[in-house]
Amino acid sequence: VNTVNQHLASANPSVQWIGGTDGHLQLIDQTLLPQQLSYVACHDVDTVWEAIKSLRVRGAPAIGIAAAYGVCLASGAAPPGQAAAAAQCAAEHLASSRPTAVNLFWALDRMTSVIRDRSWSEYTLAEALLAEARQIHNEDRQMCHAIGRHGAALIPAQATLMTHCNAGGLATAEYGTALSVMFTCQDQGKRLHVFADETRPLWQGSRLTAWELTRRGIPVTLICDSMAAHVMQTRKVDAVIVGADRITARGDVANKIGTYGLAVNAKHHGVPFYVAAPSSTFDLQMLHGSDIPIEQRSRDEIIAPHGRSIAPDGIDVYNPAFDVTPAELVSALITERGVIHQVNVESIAQHFRQNSPKPAHT
Amino acid sequence: VNTVNQHLASANPSVQWIGGTDGHLQLIDQTLLPQQLSYVACHDVDTVWEAIKSLRVRGAPAIGIAAAYGVCLASGAAPPGQAAAAAQCAAEHLASSRPTAVNLFWALDRMTSVIRDRSWSEYTLAEALLAEARQIHNEDRQMCHAIGRHGAALIPAQATLMTHCNAGGLATAEYGTALSVMFTCQDQGKRLHVFADETRPLWQGSRLTAWELTRRGIPVTLICDSMAAHVMQTRKVDAVIVGADRITARGDVANKIGTYGLAVNAKHHGVPFYVAAPSSTFDLQMLHGSDIPIEQRSRDEIIAPHGRSIAPDGIDVYNPAFDVTPAELVSALITERGVIHQVNVESIAQHFRQNSPKPAHT
Repeated sequence: VNTVNQHLASANPSVQWIGGTDGHLQLIDQTLLPQQLSYVACHDVDTVWEAIKSLRVRGAPAIGIAAAYGVCLASGAAPPGQAAAAAQCAAEHLASSRPTAVNLFWALDRMTSVIRDRSWSEYTLAEALLAEARQIHNEDRQMCHAIGRHGAALIPAQATLMTHCNAGGLATAEYGTALSVMFTCQDQGKRLHVFADETRPLWQGSRLTAWELTRRGIPVTLICDSMAAHVMQTRKVDAVIVGADRITARGDVANKIGTYGLAVNAKHHGVPFYVAAPSSTFDLQMLHGSDIPIEQRSRDEIIAPHGRSIAPDGIDVYNPAFDVTPAELVSALITERGVIHQVNVESIAQHFRQNSPKPAHT
Repeated sequence: VNTVNQHLASANPSVQWIGGTDGHLQLIDQTLLPQQLSYVACHDVDTVWEAIKSLRVRGAPAIGIAAAYGVCLASGAAPPGQAAAAAQCAAEHLASSRPTAVNLFWALDRMTSVIRDRSWSEYTLAEALLAEARQIHNEDRQMCHAIGRHGAALIPAQATLMTHCNAGGLATAEYGTALSVMFTCQDQGKRLHVFADETRPLWQGSRLTAWELTRRGIPVTLICDSMAAHVMQTRKVDAVIVGADRITARGDVANKIGTYGLAVNAKHHGVPFYVAAPSSTFDLQMLHGSDIPIEQRSRDEIIAPHGRSIAPDGIDVYNPAFDVTPAELVSALITERGVIHQVNVESIAQHFRQNSPKPAHT
C-alpha cells in the first residue's frame, strides 16, 4: 500500500490518454485498490465498455471522460473513410454500459456533436474528437477545483464530516466533487475529521475514499453504512457531503445506494446534507427523480463478497446500484458555478441562467 | 446447505443440554452457518465464554440460556464442597463475555439466586442449577410462541415486512422473537414477503435470517442495510419488526447496530416499527437508553471480511455492535404478555404490573 500511496501522491490520474490520435486510454483498475495499483490499457472500445460496466473506472465524471476517449479509440482504429461511422457506433455502444449517471450521456453527446459537425474533414475527425475528449477532461479538472472552493465556504474551520461511496479524485479528473470540498478545506488549513461509510456492496468507501483521505492526511474513521445514524446520534456531525450521478431539474439526486437513507437520517438529526457535482451531472430535461433509471446489478455482489457465499443457495436478492434523494432533503447543491441554497426547480434554472452557459465545445 | 436445512427442519435447537447433571452444553456454531452445520460441545465454562464472545451462540435470549447452562458445567465439575463457589465464580466470569444484552445478566441472576438459596443442600445444588437452567430454557420457548401470537395480530393477511439482524429460532430457544411473529403469521395462513437486511459487519441477516425464513418457505429478499430506505420509498412496506438486546424502563431499545437508522427511516416513511422481545430483555432499573453500555468489537470484523482486507492499512475503524432506538420511534413493543402500544415509562410499568409477574424460579 505504501508503494501505491507514493504513486498516487504524484497525482496519478484514474483516467489518462497516452499519446496522440493513435494513442490509447489508460485507467487505474479501481476494483483492485487499495491493495494493488494496476492499470488497464484500453486499445479498443470493448475494453472501455467492459471497464465501465465492471467498475474498473467508476464515478460519474470519470465515466464520462473515459467514454469520450473510448470514442477516440474507435475513430483512430477505423479504416479510411469510416472514422465517423465507427465513432458514432462506439458512442452508441458505450451509452449502453451503465444507465444511471448522466455524465456518460452528456460526454457522448459532446463527442457525437463533433462527429456531426460537417466542418471537420474526414482527415481531422480523429484530431477533433481527441481535442474534444481532452477538453471534457480538462474542464472536469477545473470544475472539481471550483466545486472545492465553493463547497469549502460552507464548512466551519473545525468540522466533523461524513460521506458515502467515493466522490474523490478517482471518480473524476482530479480532486473529486464531495472530496474536493474536503481537500480544499485541508488546503485552507481547516481541521477535519471524516466518517466514511464503507458503502456496500462494493466497498468504495473503505477501498477508495478512506484511502484517498488517508494519503492526504485527513483523519478518517471507517464505519459500516448502518452505523451512520448512530454516529449522528452520539456526536456532532457538521455536514454530510456526497457526490451525484444525476440531478434532475427540481433537484432530486441519484447517487450510490444508501445515500437516500443517509439523507433521511441527516434530516432527522439536523445535519446539513450537501451534494457536490458538476453541471454535467444535471439532467434538466428530467423533472422527477422517480424517472431516473436505476441500474440493477448482479446478486453475487451482495451474496458472494470475495467469492465466498454468505447466504443460503438460491436466495432472492435485490441489488439496486443507486437510489434517489428528493430535493427536499438536500440542504444545498454545490456546482462549479456556485452554491444552490434553496433546492428547487426555479433556483436550479436560475443558477444555470445566471452563470454563463458553457459551450458544448470550443 | 440441503443437509443443513434437513437437520434444522427437525427443530435442531441452537442451544441444547445433553445428559443430566454430568452432561454438557451443545451449541450450533452460528459463525459457520449457512454453509456448515457444526456443533460446539462445551464441557467447561471457558468454552461457553468463548462461544458467547465470538458469537458462536448469539441472540440475547440464546446467550442467557447458554450462560445458565455454563453455570451448571462449573458446578458439575467442581470438587466436593466447592460446587457453590465454582458456580458463583462461573456466573461472574460469564457476565464479562458481552456487555449489552441484559438477558445474559438476568439469566445469571436467576442462577445466582439458586446458589444463594440455602435450602439446597450441597448434594442437590447441581440438580437445582440444572433445573433452573432448563426452566429458563423452557420459559424462553413458551415466551417465543406467545410473542409470535401477540405480534401476528398486528400484521395484515398479506404483508411486506422488513427485519434487521437475526431475531429467529437461532437467537432463542425456539421460533425467535421478531421472526416468531413471521412464523406465526405463516402458521395462520397469512401471506408474507420479507426484506432481510444483510446486517454488516457479520451478516446475521444474510447468513441466519434469510436462511431461517427460506427453510420455512417464507419468501425473503436479501438487501444490503443501505437499501432499506430505498425499498421503503419505492414500495409499500407494512411493518419493520426487530428483536432487542435491552429495553429500558422508558422503552429505549438497544439492538444490533443499524436498527436505529432503520427506525428513523421507518418513521420518515410512516412504516410501523415493532420491537419483539421477552420480559427478560427489559432492564427496568435503567431509564435512558444512553446509559446502556455499547459493546465495541474488533476492527477486523469490518476491514477484513473473510480475512481479505478491503481498506488501507492502519485505517481508523469504529465498530459499535449495537445502537439505541429511542422509545419515540417505536410503534409498539411486543412481549410474551401482550403488546405495549404507547411506548413510555408509564405504559411499560403498567404492562408488567397488570400481567402477573413471573417468579424468579419455581
